Amino acid sequence: MSRSFHSIAFVASETEPAQEAARRLSALYGNASTETADVIVALGGDGFMLQTLHRFMDTSQPIYGMNKGTVGFLMNHYREHGLRERLAAAVENAIHPLEMIAIDTDGVEHRALAINEVSIFRQSYQAARLAISIDGKVRLEELVCDGVMVATPTGSTAYNLSAQGPILPIDAPLLALTPVSPFRPRRWRGALLRNHQEVRITALEAAKRPVNAVADATEVKSVTEVTIRESGDDVCYILFDQDHSWDERILIEQFRY
Amino acid sequence: MSRSFHSIAFVASETEPAQEAARRLSALYGNASTETADVIVALGGDGFMLQTLHRFMDTSQPIYGMNKGTVGFLMNHYREHGLRERLAAAVENAIHPLEMIAIDTDGVEHRALAINEVSIFRQSYQAARLAISIDGKVRLEELVCDGVMVATPTGSTAYNLSAQGPILPIDAPLLALTPVSPFRPRRWRGALLRNHQEVRITALEAAKRPVNAVADATEVKSVTEVTIRESGDDVCYILFDQDHSWDERILIEQFRY
Amino acid sequence: MSRSFHSIAFVASETEPAQEAARRLSALYGNASTETADVIVALGGDGFMLQTLHRFMDTSQPIYGMNKGTVGFLMNHYREHGLRERLAAAVENAIHPLEMIAIDTDGVEHRALAINEVSIFRQSYQAARLAISIDGKVRLEELVCDGVMVATPTGSTAYNLSAQGPILPIDAPLLALTPVSPFRPRRWRGALLRNHQEVRITALEAAKRPVNAVADATEVKSVTEVTIRESGDDVCYILFDQDHSWDERILIEQFRY
Amino acid sequence: MSRSFHSIAFVASETEPAQEAARRLSALYGNASTETADVIVALGGDGFMLQTLHRFMDTSQPIYGMNKGTVGFLMNHYREHGLRERLAAAVENAIHPLEMIAIDTDGVEHRALAINEVSIFRQSYQAARLAISIDGKVRLEELVCDGVMVATPTGSTAYNLSAQGPILPIDAPLLALTPVSPFRPRRWRGALLRNHQEVRITALEAAKRPVNAVADATEVKSVTEVTIRESGDDVCYILFDQDHSWDERILIEQFRY
Repeated sequence: MSRSFHSIAFVASETEPAQEAARRLSALYGNASTETADVIVALGGDGFMLQTLHRFMDTSQPIYGMNKGTVGFLMNHYREHGLRERLAAAVENAIHPLEMIAIDTDGVEHRALAINEVSIFRQSYQAARLAISIDGKVRLEELVCDGVMVATPTGSTAYNLSAQGPILPIDAPLLALTPVSPFRPRRWRGALLRNHQEVRITALEAAKRPVNAVADATEVKSVTEVTIRESGDDVCYILFDQDHSWDERILIEQFRY
Repeated sequence: MSRSFHSIAFVASETEPAQEAARRLSALYGNASTETADVIVALGGDGFMLQTLHRFMDTSQPIYGMNKGTVGFLMNHYREHGLRERLAAAVENAIHPLEMIAIDTDGVEHRALAINEVSIFRQSYQAARLAISIDGKVRLEELVCDGVMVATPTGSTAYNLSAQGPILPIDAPLLALTPVSPFRPRRWRGALLRNHQEVRITALEAAKRPVNAVADATEVKSVTEVTIRESGDDVCYILFDQDHSWDERILIEQFRY
Repeated sequence: MSRSFHSIAFVASETEPAQEAARRLSALYGNASTETADVIVALGGDGFMLQTLHRFMDTSQPIYGMNKGTVGFLMNHYREHGLRERLAAAVENAIHPLEMIAIDTDGVEHRALAINEVSIFRQSYQAARLAISIDGKVRLEELVCDGVMVATPTGSTAYNLSAQGPILPIDAPLLALTPVSPFRPRRWRGALLRNHQEVRITALEAAKRPVNAVADATEVKSVTEVTIRESGDDVCYILFDQDHSWDERILIEQFRY
Repeated sequence: MSRSFHSIAFVASETEPAQEAARRLSALYGNASTETADVIVALGGDGFMLQTLHRFMDTSQPIYGMNKGTVGFLMNHYREHGLRERLAAAVENAIHPLEMIAIDTDGVEHRALAINEVSIFRQSYQAARLAISIDGKVRLEELVCDGVMVATPTGSTAYNLSAQGPILPIDAPLLALTPVSPFRPRRWRGALLRNHQEVRITALEAAKRPVNAVADATEVKSVTEVTIRESGDDVCYILFDQDHSWDERILIEQFRY
């Protein structure tokens, strides 16, 4: 991990602290064009980091986040000095996003990527009725629920955790399939799948019980079928300080209570 | 419980089996006007029964359901003969609904009753941020979640159960306050409140994170504040066969797995 | 609640802070004999309070606890001045303990009372196999588990809470039947029963899979059948400061996370 | 997987159906000495299979189970004909057991292997107080609970599942650390660890609160410290029919409800 980064581009969320940080860091290190920079430094919280990962997907530019926001699970500590040394010493994690192919009630196909999770959710107060297939085989013929999601290890500490899904080590070759408020079967708790398995969610009674699909922050209204798999083609890179690596964060998160 | 019912009105859900049952029973027992009948017999499933209870709220006419639908938790077994005897022998349960007062983002106040539950739920993929007060005192300053509900004992086997809330005996003087997918505090499991306590849910960031409120099937969009309490004024009466009373149903439901 | 207490007896746990508190309070208020005192003041933590409640069961002497221990859920705040006024103003709660009748493998019958819970638990690494009856009717023919308990509202914040049972308002007329590590049926979550219902737990394969029964801190080894009901005859009284009543404590506990 | 097995040894649990099966199969295929056989065929249920895996640990002889017992999660379907062909076509899974090093209150060290799980559990009604370290670093200073376990993917459908731990795909490089009835921190749900991480459980107050350690069916009484890691040296091999592989069983189990 002794890769060295000559040109740095700073991107910042819209909050004043993040904008101020961008100004100060640009004065210290220069601010390269995001198109040519060797590394992108993102300033903000986890939400902004997710946006940045999406924005620089497939550019091969690694992203290093520094916390100027509220949660900061994906972020390194904010410090102004020694940035080049921290970048050179950082550990790189390759993240393969989920690919969502959603077909809506007009038959239109939508494609979006998700770093955290793809979720399907009821649109009105009517509970969703969903069927779930894994690798082309129906495993649950009818799930009556608020919704269901497929989460990556990165996303396992986000929405998946709220829905009582397990926290996964970052490089576990797994995906969490986690229901939200399952009414029938009412005690179904979801499944840990292998990361090469493909999940298909079919909306039953899509007219009476409309459901939306969401890949991170991309929402598709009124879907009838959603296919979710780890993308083989897409990848982004995230950098963490060694003394506070993702492994350590996951452990800390797992032992929080 | 030796009350006798002279005139019976039959109401039925739209399904053919329920309509057919209404025709056959009307031929056997006559079909009084719903306005003057001593008792209402509802034919359908639990959803139709809920509609019927709402429709005849505060008329003092008791409702006796016979199952011609899918779930049938609120319904007696369907049989055509001996109906007058079953009605005379049935056990009556008084149900006090919840009263929901919801104020929307335009400042308009909406009032609705709920026999099962009042729920507040995120409208978009943005998680809800809610504050919860009990009897005027803030008990949870910030709940980040999909939603939250107040359920009656009757409703404790419905949506409340999906969200992992406890099943309550029908006459327990309690209300279940149950969160859906709590993200922060992430392990909060809700509370069993006394039935005379008043719950107020305030939507924080109602513009960025719009939420809806639902009282059974009455939905109010984009609310900012929802007050929920057991109604002292409203009441409806539901009749159950003695050999299959609500107590027994609750026990059966509690020991299902 | 304007009952006045002339003679006070102080009892204290073995820790030095509790003993010291007893000396100081006795100097201020005198220390009556526990046999003739109008009120017992217990100094220690929740564990000592439970012992004290057992010790003065059926004497009709109310117990007022002041916290000199670790948890203090059953205790009032410790203060030395104004004790007579606090006692006079305190709210009294009558507590009906559970009565446990346990029959061991030698056929001997043991009786014990429980203020918190009666639990049945595997004695060795072999999972327990239990049958559960309510009011003489078998409701669960086989529960394979670590154990199961019946908890009072008072006990609902103790062991019951660890086993994911719900917290009950102190005067809810309910008992919580809560399994510990149910293996089969594996998703059974227990039941809220009415407080006049009688629970019978039968140990299946009591030789191969020995189980113990525990009523608060009274353990009976190798039981074959345990009957649990709220005692109609036994009662103890616990006193709480008005500004920090049990209701308030339960609410605080329910909103802890 | 076209390995062929010339000599087969049959081992059977003590039940009559299993013994009878062993006689019939021996008549059809011969019964080699367990010491020289190419493959061991185990007849019984999951409990007997576990015993057999322990018995033939490190012999490099693969074990093929046929179900003559109650659960049969680890077993193939029982059929008498075509056994050689089934054995030749079976899929082999290498299982690395957990190694438990337990030190008791006399300072004696005990070593045992576990295919399912190593659990630590309270010996009396006194709750256990445990500290948990991962790779030498304390992660939980005090867990007050009934117990805690480390489960393998194989064991994730056994005791781990009762304690609400997640079901793991058989070759997931993970271990499940799962608490039983955590009282403090009361909402801690455990952690998914990497399979190369070492877990150390220390009993606090081992005299007042005695705990036992169990590796599968090997129990060590009154332990003070237990170290658990995946054994690098030990291995056993289990054979599954292709049409009903472990993957498929895990999926079926994950979608059971």
